[in-house]
Amino acid sequence: MQYHVDGELVAAEDATVSVRNRGFQYGDAAFETLRAYGGQVFAWAAHASRLRASCDALGIDHALSDRDLRGRVHATLAANDLANASVRLTVTRGDQSGSFAPGDDVDPTVVVVADELPRGGVGGERAWRSPASAATVAVERVADDALPAVAKTNNYLNGVLARIDAGDADEAILLDSEGRVTGGATSNVFFVDDGVVHTPSLDLPVNPGITRWAVVELAEDIGITVEEGHYTPQDLRAADELFLTNTTWEVRPVSEYDDTTYSTCKVGARLARAFAEEVEQRHY
Amino acid sequence: MQYHVDGELVAAEDATVSVRNRGFQYGDAAFETLRAYGGQVFAWAAHASRLRASCDALGIDHALSDRDLRGRVHATLAANDLANASVRLTVTRGDQSGSFAPGDDVDPTVVVVADELPRGGVGGERAWRSPASAATVAVERVADDALPAVAKTNNYLNGVLARIDAGDADEAILLDSEGRVTGGATSNVFFVDDGVVHTPSLDLPVNPGITRWAVVELAEDIGITVEEGHYTPQDLRAADELFLTNTTWEVRPVSEYDDTTYSTCKVGARLARAFAEEVEQRHY
Repeated sequence: MQYHVDGELVAAEDATVSVRNRGFQYGDAAFETLRAYGGQVFAWAAHASRLRASCDALGIDHALSDRDLRGRVHATLAANDLANASVRLTVTRGDQSGSFAPGDDVDPTVVVVADELPRGGVGGERAWRSPASAATVAVERVADDALPAVAKTNNYLNGVLARIDAGDADEAILLDSEGRVTGGATSNVFFVDDGVVHTPSLDLPVNPGITRWAVVELAEDIGITVEEGHYTPQDLRAADELFLTNTTWEVRPVSEYDDTTYSTCKVGARLARAFAEEVEQRHY
Repeated sequence: MQYHVDGELVAAEDATVSVRNRGFQYGDAAFETLRAYGGQVFAWAAHASRLRASCDALGIDHALSDRDLRGRVHATLAANDLANASVRLTVTRGDQSGSFAPGDDVDPTVVVVADELPRGGVGGERAWRSPASAATVAVERVADDALPAVAKTNNYLNGVLARIDAGDADEAILLDSEGRVTGGATSNVFFVDDGVVHTPSLDLPVNPGITRWAVVELAEDIGITVEEGHYTPQDLRAADELFLTNTTWEVRPVSEYDDTTYSTCKVGARLARAFAEEVEQRHY
């Protein structure tokens, strides 16, 4: 494997950052998890836009164009002969320049790593083997006022601790300080009640997932109502079905959540199908 | 310079971690900032104990002895011929093993970097040039339920954003979600009112600083009363004096906080003197 580090393709074993890189010392970096289908990145414009929003939230003025970043992603895919892959694109504030408070001059470090993933699309294999189990955890979602949820950053311990707390469950469901559902450690959560799809609204500390956005758009296209709001774990348990979304999982049904079992994921399956068709249409 | 990475001394320019290291990808690592005076680490036992507490909070079962870790710190100091230095000791969960949820087997990466610092002690030069200015910031301290404050981790963006928010001020003062003072971005805060020293109590999201602990002990030794409690910015502004502590600054007076100026730091100076004497006694 070859990864792309600081402007160059290097062998995976040589793909490193300085121990003085702020991305390492403080997690002072933003990232995107991308999915390539048939050699092309899905929803690149949306990912590039969120990466900009993350960097803006951190005050990382990296001066790299979307085109430049996309070029590095495609170079990594090409170097590894990968058509279908999961790609992580990270932009750090660069090496520590001496003081903890970042200076105005940013010398960003860009890192691209990639892993092969199944093809996806209509009839294609998914990146997951079975519906997910999920569990509410005691670890609380970091508040927006402490670290803006709009920023997807290398400060990901909140999710790591949540996933540890979830034990054998595939995904942890995190609540905010008032007990409202915010989503999974690495996913957005949706539930379906009487045919209406619900998902936590973005005024809560919820990362604005690209797949979340795509699913909301697709639901509207095929005439499924989506409501965004504030929900409790009880709302999820009382629902007809539950599913999770992220770039890797796309739409993944939940079979168990805490003590609740769901026997169906019909609306979820319609949306998964619509998503797969969207992938086919854009990429094959 | 030589740094110590994963068991070996290497030239600073070769001191790197894999881009797949969890310390980089998720800030999944604990660290200590240590101070060496005359070639010896100040309060090593206290730092080692806090590092253990940090790793415990993250579920990083690294199986490294305090003696082993201390050996790497001393090897780094010796390799660079450093007697008086600031040292950062980082322990990460190791390289990503495939899944976001950490496995049970941890192959930790230990990193030691060091920088020369003034000698400190009685009559010695400090690591700061002038009393600090400090400003209350809008960035809120991460809640304990989201990320335990007892853990000093590579998830340090909350402090970075606070320091950016503080602008020209030397230190940011962060409040919790209820408006109570928790401390600085990289320091603990103390204020003095009628000769009594006050500092935020550890039931708040306050990192249990080693210098904070040393100063509380020394105050008791020299007959100064210390009270720990819940305070607002107004309590700090109304105080006779204000000072900050951390391993690098030791005891640093605050001359300005928001719109308040302090004309004295007498009690702070007594404690700074007691700290310097403690350093002399232990290390010279």
